[in-house]
Amino acid sequence: MFERVVIGIDPGVAATGLAVVVLGRGSRPKVTHAETLRTQAGAPEAARLRTVHGTVVDLLSAYPAEAVALERLLWGRNVGSAMSVARATGAVLVAAAGAGVPVHEYAPLEVKMAVTGDGGARKQDLRRALGRIHGIADVPSEPDAADAVAVAVCHFQMARGLRAAEAAR
Amino acid sequence: MFERVVIGIDPGVAATGLAVVVLGRGSRPKVTHAETLRTQAGAPEAARLRTVHGTVVDLLSAYPAEAVALERLLWGRNVGSAMSVARATGAVLVAAAGAGVPVHEYAPLEVKMAVTGDGGARKQDLRRALGRIHGIADVPSEPDAADAVAVAVCHFQMARGLRAAEAAR
Repeated sequence: MFERVVIGIDPGVAATGLAVVVLGRGSRPKVTHAETLRTQAGAPEAARLRTVHGTVVDLLSAYPAEAVALERLLWGRNVGSAMSVARATGAVLVAAAGAGVPVHEYAPLEVKMAVTGDGGARKQDLRRALGRIHGIADVPSEPDAADAVAVAVCHFQMARGLRAAEAAR
Repeated sequence: MFERVVIGIDPGVAATGLAVVVLGRGSRPKVTHAETLRTQAGAPEAARLRTVHGTVVDLLSAYPAEAVALERLLWGRNVGSAMSVARATGAVLVAAAGAGVPVHEYAPLEVKMAVTGDGGARKQDLRRALGRIHGIADVPSEPDAADAVAVAVCHFQMARGLRAAEAAR
């Protein structure tokens, strides 16, 4: 059976969303694994990042992923939290490169467009679209895990759009 | 012989300054190793971060470091470069935690104060002070490697100040 596996990740030092999403030929995406990894509060940042790195290493060795999909960080008002997300992203990138799996990053607008068709979609619209449009039965209730599913679905949509554009040339 | 080893790091995706600085009892710091690691231009960011991570892992297995000292990122005007430095810092932190070596971060002002006694010191003052005040004969000419030496020397100075303060209590 032909299957494509993408691991979607929403990185963070305290909480990282992780999702393994599988697409069979012509079928709808299926969530094989979704979790929000929470690292030990109060532990040194380096130890927490090591946990994030190790968990991604483990996932990449358990699933034959063709890609890791990440939401590209937007710089909001909270500089400290942006820095923390960027550090966690570094830990994830090291894990992906170690496994030889390519990384694709998508802007939040791209994720919204690809998943809902609406760049102004809110979080709850995104979750709902994963169920209604993409037929995912088991959308995680936790926001970080749901975001990880969304970015993996975005990757499939973008790759599909790219292939369609190539076929039309 | 009693020696303390600190690895100073100035992280970056393209160029990372690395310095192994050794302090004998009562003696002046000695630079055992200093380099500017340059990663492959045009390679995917994840691959470049993996190189940074692997190099730090190798250094930490080659030298019995008591600490890794980093300059804390300041958020300048260039958000893209700040994000890139934060990701590289994440790769370094994963390596340090994997080796069980604690990480200490110092603000640029702390580094300048500790090394030159002057918070307004410029880059060249910092390099000169490493030679004149701290008696380091072999200050690297490359800025990233020199910064790595400076933050390691800062760590020794801060640790010394802390011990002096404790002794005076």
